[in-house]
Amino acid sequence: MSRPIMLMAAIVAIALASSPSSSPFAGASDPNNLQDFCVAIDGSKANVFVNGKTCKDPTKVTADDFFFAARLHMPRNTSNPMGAKVTPVRVEELPGLNTLGVAVGRIDFAPRGISPPHTHPLGTEVIVVVEGTLYAGFVDSRNKLFAKTLHPGDVFVFPKGLVHFQLNVGGGRASVFAGFGSQNPGGITTANSVFAADPPILPELLSKAFQLDKKVINHLQSQLWFEPTK
Amino acid sequence: MSRPIMLMAAIVAIALASSPSSSPFAGASDPNNLQDFCVAIDGSKANVFVNGKTCKDPTKVTADDFFFAARLHMPRNTSNPMGAKVTPVRVEELPGLNTLGVAVGRIDFAPRGISPPHTHPLGTEVIVVVEGTLYAGFVDSRNKLFAKTLHPGDVFVFPKGLVHFQLNVGGGRASVFAGFGSQNPGGITTANSVFAADPPILPELLSKAFQLDKKVINHLQSQLWFEPTK
Amino acid sequence: MSRPIMLMAAIVAIALASSPSSSPFAGASDPNNLQDFCVAIDGSKANVFVNGKTCKDPTKVTADDFFFAARLHMPRNTSNPMGAKVTPVRVEELPGLNTLGVAVGRIDFAPRGISPPHTHPLGTEVIVVVEGTLYAGFVDSRNKLFAKTLHPGDVFVFPKGLVHFQLNVGGGRASVFAGFGSQNPGGITTANSVFAADPPILPELLSKAFQLDKKVINHLQSQLWFEPTK
Amino acid sequence: MSRPIMLMAAIVAIALASSPSSSPFAGASDPNNLQDFCVAIDGSKANVFVNGKTCKDPTKVTADDFFFAARLHMPRNTSNPMGAKVTPVRVEELPGLNTLGVAVGRIDFAPRGISPPHTHPLGTEVIVVVEGTLYAGFVDSRNKLFAKTLHPGDVFVFPKGLVHFQLNVGGGRASVFAGFGSQNPGGITTANSVFAADPPILPELLSKAFQLDKKVINHLQSQLWFEPTK
Amino acid sequence: MSRPIMLMAAIVAIALASSPSSSPFAGASDPNNLQDFCVAIDGSKANVFVNGKTCKDPTKVTADDFFFAARLHMPRNTSNPMGAKVTPVRVEELPGLNTLGVAVGRIDFAPRGISPPHTHPLGTEVIVVVEGTLYAGFVDSRNKLFAKTLHPGDVFVFPKGLVHFQLNVGGGRASVFAGFGSQNPGGITTANSVFAADPPILPELLSKAFQLDKKVINHLQSQLWFEPTK
Amino acid sequence: MSRPIMLMAAIVAIALASSPSSSPFAGASDPNNLQDFCVAIDGSKANVFVNGKTCKDPTKVTADDFFFAARLHMPRNTSNPMGAKVTPVRVEELPGLNTLGVAVGRIDFAPRGISPPHTHPLGTEVIVVVEGTLYAGFVDSRNKLFAKTLHPGDVFVFPKGLVHFQLNVGGGRASVFAGFGSQNPGGITTANSVFAADPPILPELLSKAFQLDKKVINHLQSQLWFEPTK
Repeated sequence: MSRPIMLMAAIVAIALASSPSSSPFAGASDPNNLQDFCVAIDGSKANVFVNGKTCKDPTKVTADDFFFAARLHMPRNTSNPMGAKVTPVRVEELPGLNTLGVAVGRIDFAPRGISPPHTHPLGTEVIVVVEGTLYAGFVDSRNKLFAKTLHPGDVFVFPKGLVHFQLNVGGGRASVFAGFGSQNPGGITTANSVFAADPPILPELLSKAFQLDKKVINHLQSQLWFEPTK
Repeated sequence: MSRPIMLMAAIVAIALASSPSSSPFAGASDPNNLQDFCVAIDGSKANVFVNGKTCKDPTKVTADDFFFAARLHMPRNTSNPMGAKVTPVRVEELPGLNTLGVAVGRIDFAPRGISPPHTHPLGTEVIVVVEGTLYAGFVDSRNKLFAKTLHPGDVFVFPKGLVHFQLNVGGGRASVFAGFGSQNPGGITTANSVFAADPPILPELLSKAFQLDKKVINHLQSQLWFEPTK
Repeated sequence: MSRPIMLMAAIVAIALASSPSSSPFAGASDPNNLQDFCVAIDGSKANVFVNGKTCKDPTKVTADDFFFAARLHMPRNTSNPMGAKVTPVRVEELPGLNTLGVAVGRIDFAPRGISPPHTHPLGTEVIVVVEGTLYAGFVDSRNKLFAKTLHPGDVFVFPKGLVHFQLNVGGGRASVFAGFGSQNPGGITTANSVFAADPPILPELLSKAFQLDKKVINHLQSQLWFEPTK
Repeated sequence: MSRPIMLMAAIVAIALASSPSSSPFAGASDPNNLQDFCVAIDGSKANVFVNGKTCKDPTKVTADDFFFAARLHMPRNTSNPMGAKVTPVRVEELPGLNTLGVAVGRIDFAPRGISPPHTHPLGTEVIVVVEGTLYAGFVDSRNKLFAKTLHPGDVFVFPKGLVHFQLNVGGGRASVFAGFGSQNPGGITTANSVFAADPPILPELLSKAFQLDKKVINHLQSQLWFEPTK
Repeated sequence: MSRPIMLMAAIVAIALASSPSSSPFAGASDPNNLQDFCVAIDGSKANVFVNGKTCKDPTKVTADDFFFAARLHMPRNTSNPMGAKVTPVRVEELPGLNTLGVAVGRIDFAPRGISPPHTHPLGTEVIVVVEGTLYAGFVDSRNKLFAKTLHPGDVFVFPKGLVHFQLNVGGGRASVFAGFGSQNPGGITTANSVFAADPPILPELLSKAFQLDKKVINHLQSQLWFEPTK
Repeated sequence: MSRPIMLMAAIVAIALASSPSSSPFAGASDPNNLQDFCVAIDGSKANVFVNGKTCKDPTKVTADDFFFAARLHMPRNTSNPMGAKVTPVRVEELPGLNTLGVAVGRIDFAPRGISPPHTHPLGTEVIVVVEGTLYAGFVDSRNKLFAKTLHPGDVFVFPKGLVHFQLNVGGGRASVFAGFGSQNPGGITTANSVFAADPPILPELLSKAFQLDKKVINHLQSQLWFEPTK
């Protein structure tokens, strides 16, 4: 696989993660809001960093701060190695969500497209299948798999912090609407976190952890999974 | 308006509220989960009540506990006085959501159908417009209105605890997907809570609060807004 | 009723609500404090907004930051349309309460004076009757009314987020002391939030929601419930 | 001082503390409620213990569950060694407070009566002086004292977990109303916890900690501070 | 590598995870305790399951409930494929930790022994190196690696939910003491969760996610990583 | 005892407490983190104060922010009146702990050395005995003592907010590792908080509270327990 194409894979996989000061998610557990709302200031303009986001002067808040023309009704381009595209609407995209403990999103799948194994460390995800047929599941801390084949209108839960995935097993495209129990659920894609860390994790450790030959580990690490300039 | 029709109005309006031990919602603030998951026991079978729900023996949990064939892709029947229908998917309907701080739902609107003014005391709501054109808004504690006309794909936030509403202002039907920051966001419909309480609130008090003649208050209270046998 | 008098009604009703960045309340759920105390900076001097309030340099904190000569032992003037007056002591008035999850207050009632139906979205209220006889109650999310006639020394609970009210049914004046489970419980007065929003909610929607003729809605909205320059 | 009188001292001092499964307090931090309310079951009837309290069947809840004829308007008998009496209204006394994060109370003081140094580990206390003149204060973790002389109507804050006290410095009796940021703020009276533990803490340790001769320690420990049969 | 040896690998890797109703972890975020303590009932004796654990009758609690002779000062046997052994002390092992938000543990490493990449979804881990030299690190949601070589006495933090690991790079054995911000931090070992799920995740999905040939995936899945009878 | 020596006593006793804006601790209850991490800014450089700490620009965070060469493997000098030394590693010493809800530490004891009665208002402490024999215990809110004699490898819990202590009862030195369920557990030493407050608490009040002659109180207060220039 060529490098440019691999770049896309990472973009799909980590689409729910943003910068460290604003990325992961807090499911059943975002701290409570202490006022009507606390609209986030654009990250690039903030000069004070806090847990969550600093806020706009409340006297200057308008309805537009709670609005985002996300075009979530439209299918996305899934021409990438994973055959899938995540479109998140978190505090990063919709500043009015700050302090309010919820986010939404849309995921599109090409035929056989996947959402690779990943976790949302700070929030549970609930999906509603809009179109197509998906094989979806999660693995609990006993390594037990909970998986189902889902059809349009079905709802499925991926508990906070557990590894989960989806695969489009229908003949056509598929899409889901997702709700998250955090303003910023975070996103850790297993393959990227382990094999595309920058700088790389020591191959000796990964070889032992995955019981794979160092050559296979080197191969995995040589692929450019992560898009550094994003 | 006839009573049977009014019954429907209440059902639309309070569809997000369930029994007191399981109804309202906890937006940015559900307590954290302390294990992988804690699937709720059916309320009618529980003989111990706690904050939230008691749980199924974890060794008996299956993928079906996280699944609900909600048929959320299908439009609902909106032939009722409000011209709208809420289809919630909370811990009440999907027991796997227990302790996980998130819920979803779908709302359908006939032309000029409304979601009447109401609050979700325990969780923020985020809507994604799927079809149609909606006028949606909320009022903050200074009585300032934040409202927008929304089109398909648009996203809008109703902060936890604030009075909000929707009106289908397009020519055809409309529908939205909703995400909530609680396993049980609760639902207090303003008109019902005030004028359809059972037993009724003293008319003298309502007359003074709303600056309406007692006759108008009596008329409002004589309408059967609430379906008592639900 | 004349406009000037109506202005007073709103002031009574929303006395527990302050600016959006500091108003509502957080009952059983204010985030924990992470130090001995974190005395709030005066809102007008803050140039950074956060969830709650930024704090004074701890080396400059004195006993006066935890003290407020609120004169809560003195009856208030209740010469206004509601015949009642709320005197809140929240983080807005007593900056030492910041991060500490509690507030107090006093409410005075003229004979037949009322506390109109309202909610505290962020904190439960507990009242202790000091003087007089009050009819007090709240409505749960099933629309069930829980009401009692209270006498001096009696205590009653208004759970977080539920619509509640009080009416002085004794022959003389009445007063209560109130405790709140939040530094800023917030306050949403039902009548104001619905009929005095600025700009107004579309009459069509309110007419349908309350099953009232548009003329009645127009009448309700034409009254100036809210004091815009406060 | 005779033993029977000393029994009273302890009762005053620990009046805010109840049994270990229900006593201390949770100020800015009680977990959120996940339903309208969750009225506590009487402790003596519970056969399942949880964090907080198990709840009554919600269909059997009535207005009386949120009501307590505490007679908080009446002065209490302060004829005891401390010259003070605490009358708490927590979840223990008012089961409707369960899951709602707030409590109230009243304290009466004879002339020169005291509330001895103590902490509320789980909730901040705010007092409102009703009658008399009190010297009140708390000590922060740097050992800095924050104290004021308070008069009727004054409000003062004792932050969660910090040692605080009151002394009636006026010529007559004094009383305060108190609000707490927890359904069960707990109560640890310094003198009792250290010198009246049952069984006693080793005298060697206390002698070293307080730099007091063992004889003084023995004397302190021989006084029966605590009422064991309560 | 033979199967019996691989069984050990899994035991090392998931030693911090217990049953779903009691396993993962709740870092900065366990709900607050609402009483002095709430000692957990032995899981095998519980017949009511809640978020966390139901508790022992508080009148029957003794000092032994807060005590565990864990022998944490003694090195463990590290003769297993990972060359490492985790000895956790969580609510599962020490019931007095229930509702109190903290746990501890010890990890022993043979030369070149590893703690394979894993996450603690519910709690941050802080390690103190007791003996030896360790290469330790974590990967954030941008895939950035934060790693250090640690010596005796050094302290390092693994933030909640992020993939982290350790490798004994010294010539002799190594050991650490660990503190966790939860009564039950949980544990998801990346390799096990992905390649040893039971039943297995579809090879097609893993092949695509890891960009590995299906043969390699089959090889990984055929190894018995997980000890099913534990 | 001479004053200079007493200075040391206070340093031992309050070693876990820092400045008011950063000292006490938040056990089972620190607010959740809303991003991967939020490394604290050095207190002396902060010009904005919040609940917890403001954070470093996330793009400038390095592995060193999560690292502290605390030399926790080395015994400390215990030549002071208490015969003990606390070495804390909290957010104050290790800024990477900010928002992550956990801290660690080490305590060293000379023979017969003590950790005097104290509380951690914001976090539970768990100790692991490394060396020696300790008598350790805590007192609950009913004044019941829970104490044990501990040996190397033993683990014991001191619940949040309860008075606890340790005494080295073995012939040689002793040491423990400690884990805390907060980034900043706080520390209130009973003797200091009561007898070394600055300015002093009124002797009349202490005399009554401790049933000690005023001369004894004066003696206790005249000792300089607290180190003001720290």
